[in-house]
Amino acid sequence: MAKKVSKEGLTVKKADDFSEWYQQLMIKSELADYSKVSGCIVFRPRSQWIWEKFVRETDDLFKEVGVENVMFPLFIPESLLLKEADHVEGFAPEVAWVTHAGDKELNEKLAIRPTSEAIIYDSYSKWIRSYNDLPMRYNQWCSVVRWEFKNPVPFFRTREFQWNEGHTVFATADEAIAEGKEILGIYDKVCSEMMALPGIIGRKTEKEKFAGAVSTDKIHYVLSNGRVIEGPCFHYDGQNFAKAYDIKFLNEKGEEDYVYQNTWAITTRMLGAMFTVHSDDNGLVIPPRLCKNKVGIVPILFEDSKDKVLAKVEELKYKLKDFAPLCDLREGVSPGRKFAGMELKGMPLRIELGPRDLEKGVVMIAKRTGGDKIEVKIEDLVLKVGMMLDEMQHELYDNAKELLESRMKRSEDSGEVVEMVKGGNMVKVPFCKGEACEGKLKEIMPGLKSLFIDSDGESIEEKKCLVCGEHAEYYLWVGRTY
Amino acid sequence: MAKKVSKEGLTVKKADDFSEWYQQLMIKSELADYSKVSGCIVFRPRSQWIWEKFVRETDDLFKEVGVENVMFPLFIPESLLLKEADHVEGFAPEVAWVTHAGDKELNEKLAIRPTSEAIIYDSYSKWIRSYNDLPMRYNQWCSVVRWEFKNPVPFFRTREFQWNEGHTVFATADEAIAEGKEILGIYDKVCSEMMALPGIIGRKTEKEKFAGAVSTDKIHYVLSNGRVIEGPCFHYDGQNFAKAYDIKFLNEKGEEDYVYQNTWAITTRMLGAMFTVHSDDNGLVIPPRLCKNKVGIVPILFEDSKDKVLAKVEELKYKLKDFAPLCDLREGVSPGRKFAGMELKGMPLRIELGPRDLEKGVVMIAKRTGGDKIEVKIEDLVLKVGMMLDEMQHELYDNAKELLESRMKRSEDSGEVVEMVKGGNMVKVPFCKGEACEGKLKEIMPGLKSLFIDSDGESIEEKKCLVCGEHAEYYLWVGRTY
Repeated sequence: MAKKVSKEGLTVKKADDFSEWYQQLMIKSELADYSKVSGCIVFRPRSQWIWEKFVRETDDLFKEVGVENVMFPLFIPESLLLKEADHVEGFAPEVAWVTHAGDKELNEKLAIRPTSEAIIYDSYSKWIRSYNDLPMRYNQWCSVVRWEFKNPVPFFRTREFQWNEGHTVFATADEAIAEGKEILGIYDKVCSEMMALPGIIGRKTEKEKFAGAVSTDKIHYVLSNGRVIEGPCFHYDGQNFAKAYDIKFLNEKGEEDYVYQNTWAITTRMLGAMFTVHSDDNGLVIPPRLCKNKVGIVPILFEDSKDKVLAKVEELKYKLKDFAPLCDLREGVSPGRKFAGMELKGMPLRIELGPRDLEKGVVMIAKRTGGDKIEVKIEDLVLKVGMMLDEMQHELYDNAKELLESRMKRSEDSGEVVEMVKGGNMVKVPFCKGEACEGKLKEIMPGLKSLFIDSDGESIEEKKCLVCGEHAEYYLWVGRTY
Repeated sequence: MAKKVSKEGLTVKKADDFSEWYQQLMIKSELADYSKVSGCIVFRPRSQWIWEKFVRETDDLFKEVGVENVMFPLFIPESLLLKEADHVEGFAPEVAWVTHAGDKELNEKLAIRPTSEAIIYDSYSKWIRSYNDLPMRYNQWCSVVRWEFKNPVPFFRTREFQWNEGHTVFATADEAIAEGKEILGIYDKVCSEMMALPGIIGRKTEKEKFAGAVSTDKIHYVLSNGRVIEGPCFHYDGQNFAKAYDIKFLNEKGEEDYVYQNTWAITTRMLGAMFTVHSDDNGLVIPPRLCKNKVGIVPILFEDSKDKVLAKVEELKYKLKDFAPLCDLREGVSPGRKFAGMELKGMPLRIELGPRDLEKGVVMIAKRTGGDKIEVKIEDLVLKVGMMLDEMQHELYDNAKELLESRMKRSEDSGEVVEMVKGGNMVKVPFCKGEACEGKLKEIMPGLKSLFIDSDGESIEEKKCLVCGEHAEYYLWVGRTY
């Protein structure tokens, strides 16, 4: 006989079928929905609220260090896009092209921005004249389009996604490179403190770096299935784009030189990482700092005490207004079903109030991440709720950190590496820097790839490359990405 | 001999050549720039900051009344767009079409959203089942594309612009209609209080209403050249879109019915209105509430007192940090040229500090909107600056209100109407409601059009239509739009 399952809740377990679990989580917790545009999703209010909150706080930190926002056109003329060869090669197969307006064919087709280097740097070449104009640290929050042909996965892989793109310009290489610490520091801070996601900052290999960059650093996160998520990135572009887009300036010595540039971004893919890392078989778990409604209230109603209990609920709602409480007052729906509904949608704390609690002047509080329900005196409620939310925020971070650390292994044997990666880990291996060897990783195991170069400073002397067995140059982290 | 003009400042007067004055203002005050995409502009940091500030405050008010934000795809499949005939007819000639991704032709071409009814209402038809799901009050802040072929004018007419689009759904017509007051009230409040722009809320005629709506209300603003700007709008759509997109629900009686909907929007065109109404022959004027840097500091430097004056400037900068002061410390640039630069860019208050001021413990303050410089004791500075900024905010509003009221005339004679409109006015005329007569307005005068229906409640009895001379049904405001 088939087990009876609620249509409202998740019908698979995270550990059993990660992909199906995630798809159900997205739809049933009303974060996202598919649309009539293949590969594009709708950000429903629950996820858009989170993104906008995250953007406001991140943007405030950008502004504190002197970054200013701009908004460039959505379109990039083909001829502009073609100016930097590596860059085009990286994006051309995924570009969506506008060819007509109304029933007229355009003289030149226009790309929908897959990223805005081309259109922004064309303006920079007009605006920048001397070192007095530098640094120029501009950023925009917008959406971009990359027409992937793989199956879409909400937040992780969609043809349109939201992001920030920072495009900064400096008079010297040193200043440009120094910005990396500052920006990656901000990204790391907001992901750690708001999303409760600890990550590892690591440099990509030559093969994996951004098309057009001198070097690429990314922050890496690990999912419970061991797949690695490439999060926010920082590219030091040197003078590559400056030469392609002719961005010259007079330096302090009065000499003409090309500028030094960086590009950096964080995308809505991080929402996907956050949802998957924290959520469980009962549904969504979101760090309280990114919850709009931090408290749910469920009254336990009996005919003879209903009015009194509901009056108290109103009072609690007012007391807790800073936590934007949601009350589930539906009639004809059992408390159990209401509890499950709140769990599914990731309500951090649930407050239950019945007639007996009322008499005692207490409520019961259940935390979304589990543990026994606790009884709290109504007079202590506001303080206790604040404390429990803080506690939950830290608990989620600590759990994610434990997950991350438990998935970091090391090995010098390719057979062992395969076993470790199959077991849901990333692995630190000695490597020779050869692009050929990097290309051969997928022969060792399908999907195995270079993640980032280790920066612990551990001696590599005497070590042999995992692939070719020749002299190793550095430690490389390898694994599978999501 | 040609008059010597500074290359940095504006070389034409607002009253002499409005259009050239505006173009120069945009470029020289670094608000906007043209781009390689014809008809699209770049929002430089100075204008994007204003828009984002305006969005944050407006969005906070939307949220207070229960509106939630979403983000729908940028694309709309052709078949979806075609579902509501009037709607398509209104937009089709200006739609930008994506036909290819990489080098592959798409199966169905995709419109870049000119507005999102089609894609949003398709989801609503899935999400809405019963009156429990209503009201659903969703909004998104994004950019839209309308491929106009007229000359672009920064902020006023560009092929891509930024806006909000509210798409709300109700169980009854009454609730939907009632939302109008609330939303137009918010729009009127933010435009009045932040942009210092008073407007007139008025209903459009049948001929001028939004394609697909039952009725359209807009807020109207007047420029110094007498042209009328159509600002934020509110459309009551009745069940028109619900029928086209099949959005049904079970009402409280358990009967199936179509929902009632509204759409409402405010665009970056309002920035254009704000810049033109307040600015003058010396450059930009922006209401202080929408200025990032509210105070400029210019030290008057002489060799023997330079260090002391500069030290004091640092002190003032710290004292005034809540006003985000900008100091112009450039050497080899005369104070006069610095003053002109700050005026060009719309710095609300300019503080001058020379050695003699320093001795007296005072500074001189000049207000962007004119009047004598005043001497202020340094100990009173913070208080005084706050007061002067408030004063300026109100002064700009009062001036705009005076402008608006001075441009509102009335007449019942078409010859007189033409003279009044040529003189930079809008005119209240008796009208018969006939679309044919509305169509004939441009025969009376090229560009003359119906603006909105008067709502003063004044009796129209005995009055004759301005165009056909038949019995008039209401007073109509006519004029030229920008």
